Amino acid sequence: MVGGGQGAFIGGVHRMAARLDGCFDLVAGAFSSDPARAHASAAEIGISADRSYADYTEMAKAEAARADGIDAVSIVTPNHLHGPIAGAFLAQNISVICDKPLTATLEQAQSLLAVAEASDAHFFLTHNYTGYPMIRQARQMLAEDALGEIRIIEANYLQDWLSAVPTKENKQAKWRLDPAQSGGGAIGDIGTHAHNLACFVSGLRPTALSATLRSYVAGRIVDDDARITLEFEGGARGYIWASQVAIGNENNLTLAIYGAKGSLRWAQETPNILWFTEFGQAPQMITRGGGAANASAADVTRIPAGHPEGYLEAFATLYSEAATVIRSKPKGATIGIQAGLDGVRFVDACLRSSQDGSAWIDLS
Amino acid sequence: MVGGGQGAFIGGVHRMAARLDGCFDLVAGAFSSDPARAHASAAEIGISADRSYADYTEMAKAEAARADGIDAVSIVTPNHLHGPIAGAFLAQNISVICDKPLTATLEQAQSLLAVAEASDAHFFLTHNYTGYPMIRQARQMLAEDALGEIRIIEANYLQDWLSAVPTKENKQAKWRLDPAQSGGGAIGDIGTHAHNLACFVSGLRPTALSATLRSYVAGRIVDDDARITLEFEGGARGYIWASQVAIGNENNLTLAIYGAKGSLRWAQETPNILWFTEFGQAPQMITRGGGAANASAADVTRIPAGHPEGYLEAFATLYSEAATVIRSKPKGATIGIQAGLDGVRFVDACLRSSQDGSAWIDLS
Amino acid sequence: MVGGGQGAFIGGVHRMAARLDGCFDLVAGAFSSDPARAHASAAEIGISADRSYADYTEMAKAEAARADGIDAVSIVTPNHLHGPIAGAFLAQNISVICDKPLTATLEQAQSLLAVAEASDAHFFLTHNYTGYPMIRQARQMLAEDALGEIRIIEANYLQDWLSAVPTKENKQAKWRLDPAQSGGGAIGDIGTHAHNLACFVSGLRPTALSATLRSYVAGRIVDDDARITLEFEGGARGYIWASQVAIGNENNLTLAIYGAKGSLRWAQETPNILWFTEFGQAPQMITRGGGAANASAADVTRIPAGHPEGYLEAFATLYSEAATVIRSKPKGATIGIQAGLDGVRFVDACLRSSQDGSAWIDLS
Amino acid sequence: MVGGGQGAFIGGVHRMAARLDGCFDLVAGAFSSDPARAHASAAEIGISADRSYADYTEMAKAEAARADGIDAVSIVTPNHLHGPIAGAFLAQNISVICDKPLTATLEQAQSLLAVAEASDAHFFLTHNYTGYPMIRQARQMLAEDALGEIRIIEANYLQDWLSAVPTKENKQAKWRLDPAQSGGGAIGDIGTHAHNLACFVSGLRPTALSATLRSYVAGRIVDDDARITLEFEGGARGYIWASQVAIGNENNLTLAIYGAKGSLRWAQETPNILWFTEFGQAPQMITRGGGAANASAADVTRIPAGHPEGYLEAFATLYSEAATVIRSKPKGATIGIQAGLDGVRFVDACLRSSQDGSAWIDLS
Repeated sequence: MVGGGQGAFIGGVHRMAARLDGCFDLVAGAFSSDPARAHASAAEIGISADRSYADYTEMAKAEAARADGIDAVSIVTPNHLHGPIAGAFLAQNISVICDKPLTATLEQAQSLLAVAEASDAHFFLTHNYTGYPMIRQARQMLAEDALGEIRIIEANYLQDWLSAVPTKENKQAKWRLDPAQSGGGAIGDIGTHAHNLACFVSGLRPTALSATLRSYVAGRIVDDDARITLEFEGGARGYIWASQVAIGNENNLTLAIYGAKGSLRWAQETPNILWFTEFGQAPQMITRGGGAANASAADVTRIPAGHPEGYLEAFATLYSEAATVIRSKPKGATIGIQAGLDGVRFVDACLRSSQDGSAWIDLS
Repeated sequence: MVGGGQGAFIGGVHRMAARLDGCFDLVAGAFSSDPARAHASAAEIGISADRSYADYTEMAKAEAARADGIDAVSIVTPNHLHGPIAGAFLAQNISVICDKPLTATLEQAQSLLAVAEASDAHFFLTHNYTGYPMIRQARQMLAEDALGEIRIIEANYLQDWLSAVPTKENKQAKWRLDPAQSGGGAIGDIGTHAHNLACFVSGLRPTALSATLRSYVAGRIVDDDARITLEFEGGARGYIWASQVAIGNENNLTLAIYGAKGSLRWAQETPNILWFTEFGQAPQMITRGGGAANASAADVTRIPAGHPEGYLEAFATLYSEAATVIRSKPKGATIGIQAGLDGVRFVDACLRSSQDGSAWIDLS
Repeated sequence: MVGGGQGAFIGGVHRMAARLDGCFDLVAGAFSSDPARAHASAAEIGISADRSYADYTEMAKAEAARADGIDAVSIVTPNHLHGPIAGAFLAQNISVICDKPLTATLEQAQSLLAVAEASDAHFFLTHNYTGYPMIRQARQMLAEDALGEIRIIEANYLQDWLSAVPTKENKQAKWRLDPAQSGGGAIGDIGTHAHNLACFVSGLRPTALSATLRSYVAGRIVDDDARITLEFEGGARGYIWASQVAIGNENNLTLAIYGAKGSLRWAQETPNILWFTEFGQAPQMITRGGGAANASAADVTRIPAGHPEGYLEAFATLYSEAATVIRSKPKGATIGIQAGLDGVRFVDACLRSSQDGSAWIDLS
Repeated sequence: MVGGGQGAFIGGVHRMAARLDGCFDLVAGAFSSDPARAHASAAEIGISADRSYADYTEMAKAEAARADGIDAVSIVTPNHLHGPIAGAFLAQNISVICDKPLTATLEQAQSLLAVAEASDAHFFLTHNYTGYPMIRQARQMLAEDALGEIRIIEANYLQDWLSAVPTKENKQAKWRLDPAQSGGGAIGDIGTHAHNLACFVSGLRPTALSATLRSYVAGRIVDDDARITLEFEGGARGYIWASQVAIGNENNLTLAIYGAKGSLRWAQETPNILWFTEFGQAPQMITRGGGAANASAADVTRIPAGHPEGYLEAFATLYSEAATVIRSKPKGATIGIQAGLDGVRFVDACLRSSQDGSAWIDLS
């Protein structure tokens, strides 16, 4: 693992996700760009001293040289470092599991895509919300045309933790609010999840967008509220609202897809439920593990209906799927990298559109 | 009553609303522009034959001439007739209770406003959702600055009944889908309610808007889906989504207001509940009649907490308030007419904006 | 109307319910056993002085003697007076609409039943929760065997308003907490509603019961929490929990019926929804006015789906149905009186069972 | 691990729970009483052949003899084997983590308690629902007297998977429906969870109970529906309903505690929420990780508010707490064994009460 030292959030998540299904053991890491913090974090996590690295370049080389070197590295640093770190490990033929977004800038993303596709190692991007069983259920239903022609895709991601200037030191807030490290505020941090989910479930890609990014908290230089309108191939329209100042919303990511025959609605905070309504019929509450769950949901379900699976299980599914690829595919494969590039392109287009008076940006 | 004959929806609603609190008896009417239907409707409703009129002009004159003539007339016709009918009764010094929107066009609205303000009779516009106790509660809380500086106002009104071409004769659908009678589709029928609620609760008026109206059902000439972005005085932004093709939504009008200190959220289908969250605190479920209900809610509450009041009660509140004005005020007063003009101006601006590539329209 | 003067709750409810559908005008009343309060109440309600009575016997006689005498009287007094008042009006051939429970004691109930059945006038008991469209829907579904053999009937009615000794004068609390006037505490006030709903929807009658009545608030001499187990004909079991000390519950009456093939679940605070689950299938949210509403629901539905109807509408349905009977049936008919007798028998059996160590009482 | 081979449910759950927080590696097992299935399961799980045992006695001895022997064993067999297996490992000074219920009979439980308390090794019983953060929150709030004097404790556990005779081979159903292996039906399988949760959160123990166990499915010899009334020390009453035939309920374990000042309500299927109502105030929705979460909740919380933790996380918390004890306590300690004995005593009393006409059984 690179990143994820003391005070980090997503590093711990990746570690739990990697462990849950027993596919990975964490044996080495460069947990911080600050060497003292890196080694202290390693000790805390239980990594032996000889595999705690102060520097990711050193780690890539040393692990590649070991007979028992790592099979894959998880990258959980601020966004602007994803590209160079991934490059260093792919160059050593070590597979990469990278947190989203792919990179902080479009240029970095295109460059990383080229490197990853040329590599014999694998590359996986963790758009973690795609691991939820009911999201998989929805994707299969869309692929099977359960909704008819798609008309409207609504993907909202509402939080409230940045509603005011943080009152105490908050490592999470700090780098996210620095555009050089994050590449954007709410748009990059959570807007990309909404965009990704809309595309993942619908199977559609946007052809154009118009965005308005705003900042409601005085002194903030990145956006904390983003509104995007999208045109999708085939004529559907999409609407994304990502906000970090919507008080009363903790991590309220929702997806609703309206077609000519029916609709699907899902909310991340109650992830084991998917609402399906056929026009003129009673809405049905499809549950993970229940009688109406389909094969795609069942494939990524661990425990029976009514025993809630949550965020970590969805995340762990991506690790398990990565492990299956690493085990079974000899040549470099990728999961999610194209979606990752689309995500960075989305953020880039949103920033440009917003700076240009919400002008429409072509994405085709 | 003018309009509201056989096959109509809102006429019956007005009749029930007028009766509920015992303030009005329905004694006369011109229930249809088709005389046979008008008289048949009157008989069905129990109006004596001598007060069933084939024509509203005749009715206005005849009732004004009677010693026991009506105190007020309810106008529940298609939108484009509101103006002339209201004018006919006001000219006879008969008070008018008019369904929303005020008129079908801005020109009609301005003209009606002038007539109403010059009249010695009263004029009431029934933006019925403003009658809900929890909406009154919210308005008082906003006035008392419970949320701090207002940042974002979300008002969505989702239905699905027009998701396909109606398969059978539907009087409701028919005139609503004819722009000459309705003045607009979803935007005029339900978008105005969302706009009105946003303004009523926040106490703010928009200064500019950008709108996109669309039609998802083939062959439809009015919009069935409307998206509007608004700038409010004081800097708040508003977002309205009104749709009649959002399958799975029956009459899903929702309002959420986010301020710097807290938020309020309300949904019309569970109208006895208002969610209030102060930043960093547990969300509170305020209920009509419960311990946290304020004076404004209590004023319009009929029965104890947990005994749900619904749509008709909210509507009846407007009739009761009209009755109080009629009883107590000698000179012409109005409730809601300015909001009604604002509503027509809103629809007019939305139509113009949408036709002009979602251009920003000044409303100040 | 007899009862329902100043400070009363259910009288006002009956007045609104009677008015809503336009079937009744309130023209006479004996609104209180205190003459001054009776006349003051009458004036407030708008009853002419000559039809405001100080005494119900006088009212029955005077109204019977008038050419324009009342068609029916509503009785909304404390429970122990229902019997004598109903008797006085029925003796004058005036139809009676009586609030539940039928009477305060079983003896009174049997006597009233005999009187009512012998009368040429009609008698209606307002078990108001049976007026909800989704309750009618459920009853039809049960009659059509949608659930298979019935196994378990759960009817809970939870309130919290009596969780402590009332701190101020509360007319509602006062008579309810006096067993001579009420005939019982929670069991008679709300337990009977739960019992009635269970029987009404399932179409089954209990053959035996065991009850435990308790009082959690110091100094209270009637029960504020009741637990009853029932055996139904056909082998189903029933469970009723009625409480007035369950903090956080306003008027939380719920019904769940579990059969061998499926279940139905309903909650009074969200009355426009009925949950239907077939074993092994996704739960369906049936809505009043929605595509899955059946004829029984439609018959008592006033406004479209998503426009919530509430407590007063359900109550008004009973008034409308009474009006239809009064209009159309020449000879004395009753609605609900047998259910009312069953209800009083239920309360009586609960009191005896509880006093006898929760012994089983035969009801067959 | 002993038990948990192919086709088992809870074994896999324990393995995921043990892994999630990185405190345990699974290195040895006797996964089935059928040797072929045992070894096949071991291979599938990734246990080396030399540590796959055909027999738990052999495993206990062999592991005790290894320098790198296991620190603890998880027992996930049918209930009647818990006692002998735990005894075998404790005798070898190997700590035991045992699935609930403690044993199938009271005699076995008392014997195991004696063995465990005499051992130098540790013993942990996994009443897994006690690991949920909001359950810890509730327990702390009760301990701090947030509700005043406790009046009523409702613990219901509703499932529907046994609503009919299973149509295909179902290993889960098979042993649970055999009283010799399970010690009881719904009462032992899920009723114990409800009982445990009521005691765990309230801090109270029952002094007496009356139970009625029934079987609704023809041919079933254990109960599938259990109703228990309890008297608690201090005067509170408890009510438990455990059912496996309540169609529409997947794993619907709920707890509600009503005191003189307030109430708490929680549901396992939405475990990140705890409802708290103070009498006369608006209900508050306390969330795991939200502003109103207390120290007990925070101690067992992994990820931020709004990122749902589920069933496996709650289970993993018990493993982490066991690991902490194993690491830090030199002498034999136990968690949950007394609660486990109480649980078996509860089941035993329920069976006796039900067989004796729901007679009250003293538990003090």
